[in-house]
Amino acid sequence: MIKFGIVGLGRIGKVHLLNVQRFCDNAQIVAACPVHSEHLDFLQTQGVTEHFDSFDEMLELADIDAVIIASPTAFHFEHIVKAARAKKHIFCEKPIDLNFEKVNEIVSIVETSGIKFMLGFNRRFDPHVMQLKASVKAGKAGAARVLKISSRDPAPPPVEFVKHSGGLFLDMSIHDFDMSRYLVGSEVKEVIAHGAVFGDLPLQDYDDIDTAVITLIFENGCMVQIDNSRYNSYGYDQRIEYFGEKGSISTQNLKENEVLIADKDGYHTARAKHFFIERYEESYRNIMIDFVNHLDRGSSPTVTANDGLKALKIALAVKQSFKEKRAVQL
Amino acid sequence: MIKFGIVGLGRIGKVHLLNVQRFCDNAQIVAACPVHSEHLDFLQTQGVTEHFDSFDEMLELADIDAVIIASPTAFHFEHIVKAARAKKHIFCEKPIDLNFEKVNEIVSIVETSGIKFMLGFNRRFDPHVMQLKASVKAGKAGAARVLKISSRDPAPPPVEFVKHSGGLFLDMSIHDFDMSRYLVGSEVKEVIAHGAVFGDLPLQDYDDIDTAVITLIFENGCMVQIDNSRYNSYGYDQRIEYFGEKGSISTQNLKENEVLIADKDGYHTARAKHFFIERYEESYRNIMIDFVNHLDRGSSPTVTANDGLKALKIALAVKQSFKEKRAVQL
Amino acid sequence: MIKFGIVGLGRIGKVHLLNVQRFCDNAQIVAACPVHSEHLDFLQTQGVTEHFDSFDEMLELADIDAVIIASPTAFHFEHIVKAARAKKHIFCEKPIDLNFEKVNEIVSIVETSGIKFMLGFNRRFDPHVMQLKASVKAGKAGAARVLKISSRDPAPPPVEFVKHSGGLFLDMSIHDFDMSRYLVGSEVKEVIAHGAVFGDLPLQDYDDIDTAVITLIFENGCMVQIDNSRYNSYGYDQRIEYFGEKGSISTQNLKENEVLIADKDGYHTARAKHFFIERYEESYRNIMIDFVNHLDRGSSPTVTANDGLKALKIALAVKQSFKEKRAVQL
Amino acid sequence: MIKFGIVGLGRIGKVHLLNVQRFCDNAQIVAACPVHSEHLDFLQTQGVTEHFDSFDEMLELADIDAVIIASPTAFHFEHIVKAARAKKHIFCEKPIDLNFEKVNEIVSIVETSGIKFMLGFNRRFDPHVMQLKASVKAGKAGAARVLKISSRDPAPPPVEFVKHSGGLFLDMSIHDFDMSRYLVGSEVKEVIAHGAVFGDLPLQDYDDIDTAVITLIFENGCMVQIDNSRYNSYGYDQRIEYFGEKGSISTQNLKENEVLIADKDGYHTARAKHFFIERYEESYRNIMIDFVNHLDRGSSPTVTANDGLKALKIALAVKQSFKEKRAVQL
Repeated sequence: MIKFGIVGLGRIGKVHLLNVQRFCDNAQIVAACPVHSEHLDFLQTQGVTEHFDSFDEMLELADIDAVIIASPTAFHFEHIVKAARAKKHIFCEKPIDLNFEKVNEIVSIVETSGIKFMLGFNRRFDPHVMQLKASVKAGKAGAARVLKISSRDPAPPPVEFVKHSGGLFLDMSIHDFDMSRYLVGSEVKEVIAHGAVFGDLPLQDYDDIDTAVITLIFENGCMVQIDNSRYNSYGYDQRIEYFGEKGSISTQNLKENEVLIADKDGYHTARAKHFFIERYEESYRNIMIDFVNHLDRGSSPTVTANDGLKALKIALAVKQSFKEKRAVQL
Repeated sequence: MIKFGIVGLGRIGKVHLLNVQRFCDNAQIVAACPVHSEHLDFLQTQGVTEHFDSFDEMLELADIDAVIIASPTAFHFEHIVKAARAKKHIFCEKPIDLNFEKVNEIVSIVETSGIKFMLGFNRRFDPHVMQLKASVKAGKAGAARVLKISSRDPAPPPVEFVKHSGGLFLDMSIHDFDMSRYLVGSEVKEVIAHGAVFGDLPLQDYDDIDTAVITLIFENGCMVQIDNSRYNSYGYDQRIEYFGEKGSISTQNLKENEVLIADKDGYHTARAKHFFIERYEESYRNIMIDFVNHLDRGSSPTVTANDGLKALKIALAVKQSFKEKRAVQL
Repeated sequence: MIKFGIVGLGRIGKVHLLNVQRFCDNAQIVAACPVHSEHLDFLQTQGVTEHFDSFDEMLELADIDAVIIASPTAFHFEHIVKAARAKKHIFCEKPIDLNFEKVNEIVSIVETSGIKFMLGFNRRFDPHVMQLKASVKAGKAGAARVLKISSRDPAPPPVEFVKHSGGLFLDMSIHDFDMSRYLVGSEVKEVIAHGAVFGDLPLQDYDDIDTAVITLIFENGCMVQIDNSRYNSYGYDQRIEYFGEKGSISTQNLKENEVLIADKDGYHTARAKHFFIERYEESYRNIMIDFVNHLDRGSSPTVTANDGLKALKIALAVKQSFKEKRAVQL
Repeated sequence: MIKFGIVGLGRIGKVHLLNVQRFCDNAQIVAACPVHSEHLDFLQTQGVTEHFDSFDEMLELADIDAVIIASPTAFHFEHIVKAARAKKHIFCEKPIDLNFEKVNEIVSIVETSGIKFMLGFNRRFDPHVMQLKASVKAGKAGAARVLKISSRDPAPPPVEFVKHSGGLFLDMSIHDFDMSRYLVGSEVKEVIAHGAVFGDLPLQDYDDIDTAVITLIFENGCMVQIDNSRYNSYGYDQRIEYFGEKGSISTQNLKENEVLIADKDGYHTARAKHFFIERYEESYRNIMIDFVNHLDRGSSPTVTANDGLKALKIALAVKQSFKEKRAVQL
């Protein structure tokens, strides 16, 4: 039985906690921090009995093999460094950090520490993405020529979050950059991006945008077109199309239900699932099961700190392209 | 060049006339009857120069090889008999007649006359039905087990039409009986039907119904479920599913257009095409091209008077089943 | 915290057990019977610590408020009677029994015992069926005219199971009868059924069939067409269409994944989910949460023993119709 | 009755000729040039009786009101100039010319000549595009934010054609540039393009590519992503998505038929319609009917020489962007 401590009990922290308790028979979260009074009921129901005020205390006092880092991004660097030093295995929510040098440092620390590290690029573990990847590997579409991603949120985050998020490219598009690398199987050599503020939130005040179109050119020749929006009326739009020599493979949106209504106005189906918690529910479960299985078997998780570094490198280049209004080489 | 005369210039007559003039390079309609003043512009535009008051006159005076019979059903018997006697090939709109003995007589007359005869079961020439049939023949679904047909009109015909139509089973379901025979490749041995009047039109006053569910049992074991309605809010619903040992093959409804709208209420597409004129536009074209090609080559049309007789036999048994509230053997 | 005992640790028993442990925060399974050595690991992992050889022992010795009856059908009657006598609330897998009088007796026993009783007609709790029902109630399609259900299993059960199952109508179609009552909101007055053996399993030797078409006529006039098959090549086919005055509402099949491949042969998507465990995963979770919530609130579960009785009554009439080759009035 | 002469009897010339003869009751093609022996049967069947060796002769001798120019692109300029001088109305296949100055000259000539001129951007008359445009105008998606177009041919044209085509951007993408202008309702201010040769045809030898991704930034802020390919395995891929404040409106591909096969490998439908002749059949009919109606009413066609000029301007900027590997301002 692998024992976990978790830092951060916000929305995504709770998702990870429930997934370990419910679906990982060979693992259990036994410790949490920082614990406030509003967490007590939840932790009790889930059998998490060791409560700490700080990550340091938890690392020192709890009987744990691994940590789940679901704290705010600004703390990730510190928490990873400390956990690695304490020889705890790490599951860390994305991003590792918004600063390239700090992430680079984490890559080294993780590599030399001997611990297992998994970065939370959960979409790789979505069953539909997994099937898309499997079909790509099986050669169903042949070599990659064009990859198209539409990734649109139902609503923007609060301004307070935006300020510290690194902006749309580092916060939101970064998932699409990881997807692109994962599916194209090559590295980016050139990027160009355009963006705009269309919605009510005055994102320009924070040097940010709510809508973007991005082109990535990969070393193997594949050309990637991404569009992102913070405002999507019909739910969380998450579509990927891989176009190759022999055909096209795409993931469709999942809808809230599969009921079809036909009436005098035509045919109607439900909206796309609302947001990432609903749409990627299975991916969060799968990535945690995968991480626990790696710990169990002593094998290495497949989403590394280096994957975080490479996605960040693309995001920073895209941000630069947008600001300098020109293509940027990596 | 095959020369045609046409009797009947109503809605379906015009469809056939235009299809010959536009799409049959080796045929032309040169004569029409009965011609009234309101037809003159249309006939002139389409180059139909010989006009007659009666079918007899047309048969006698026009220089024609074949006739298209698109007159009211009550005249079909007489027109077929006369055309066969005059050795004109015949394309006849369905049904031949509502009376079994009279249709049986037509079968004999056609067989002994040496003329070519095609019955207008146009759905067999719908490209989607043709592909369904081709997939069935190619064994894509294996042997037939269950066939399901939903066939629903957007609105009932006028009461005046209903009175003389033979009722829902003979007027509307008969297409589905022909489809069943065509796709199952066997003959019906037992039928049972239920029906009701749900809509505003007082069809019960004419011993008729607006909604029915019908089961046909075929000699080869295949079981067919048909549902019919005179009131369908979303257009002309025309779906067929052939379920066999190896899978299922179905035709989907055609929509008015292929535009997809996604908004806060979900996803929306257009209604099904409105009615048979729109839905089966291609089938009307194809059946006429096919008939003309048969005449051209001297081969025999594939939809015979006997097909009309067999479909009628099923329809009459179904009607009896509904009235006597019991299964009827054929 | 509501404490449960469970009888029966087969496939469906395990589904219910996991759903209580994982998803019902206010309930826990603490006792199980009959426990064999092969169950020990599973029970330990799930924290079920009280193990018994028999249902009697469990009822007597375990500290429980309610039981989940997932034993073979032949034991349901006995287990319900004993649990009711012991004043334990009951969640019982379908069917209650294959014998009408015994189920009728259970209805009385449950009604007079004062316990809460929920029958496992899980499909009512499928999110897609729930949305279909909600749309029906909201009047999106108007009053019911025709209901169509296709319900086809991927493969037949073992012969040994078939022998004691009551046959296709009592074992398999009964779900569709419950669905029909649930969605139409009326009671059946007449049924007629046809059936055949198409597959390799010699079901005729056990007076059974593998394929059926069934018509149900409801008191409110709605006509229902059901088709069932034990052999469906593309997974578990579960489609319902409710057709009414204002339109049509249907549930589509859920696929194994939402990946779309386009290649030189056309467009391809995954099969339907394999079978009930996969297709109705959410319904099993939801029905158990619902039952626990009823216990918690002291309210009455919505799927009653009487619902089981009424579905059985339809099934027995359908079986009679098939055997006697005639319509049967209820 | 409007009388037409046509120049060019290749594939697209024949499409236009048939559409006038079949579907325009108020127009007729009476003259054609240059007529060779292999055209005689076709022209006779269609009732085109005046045959000429050259465009000059046809303009001088034929009794015509208007011309359809379906000659090779290299002759368009000359034919337009001569027809305008002869005061014949003009329907001209796209493109007017590959040279910006020459097209600009045509714009002036057409404007001062007083004739009616329609450029063959037929896609605007596709019923699905028309419905998309109507939905956009009705505000179904709100103001434009992102427009996505996938436009992929089933196979590249012969090398001999490619050499004189102006390359992928001027020959193929130009339709997408016109679509973008038409749907966004604004003018392009910046473009950037990337391209590659992936297929067997050595297009690089002709300074051409077979695959491209293009970004257009419009003055109203809308960002457009286009991808083009000369090699598409599943037919002619023609998808447009208009994404705006209130939702998304898209046109789906039309398939060769609407048959759905479900078998052990999943669900299968037909390929997309093969190429432009099949996919845009209705658009060719509609644009000709529209042109004839404008002549009949004396109103001005909606696709002007200026539309050709503006699309060409975008195409030339895109070509420059590709060659100079940088964003280009218009």
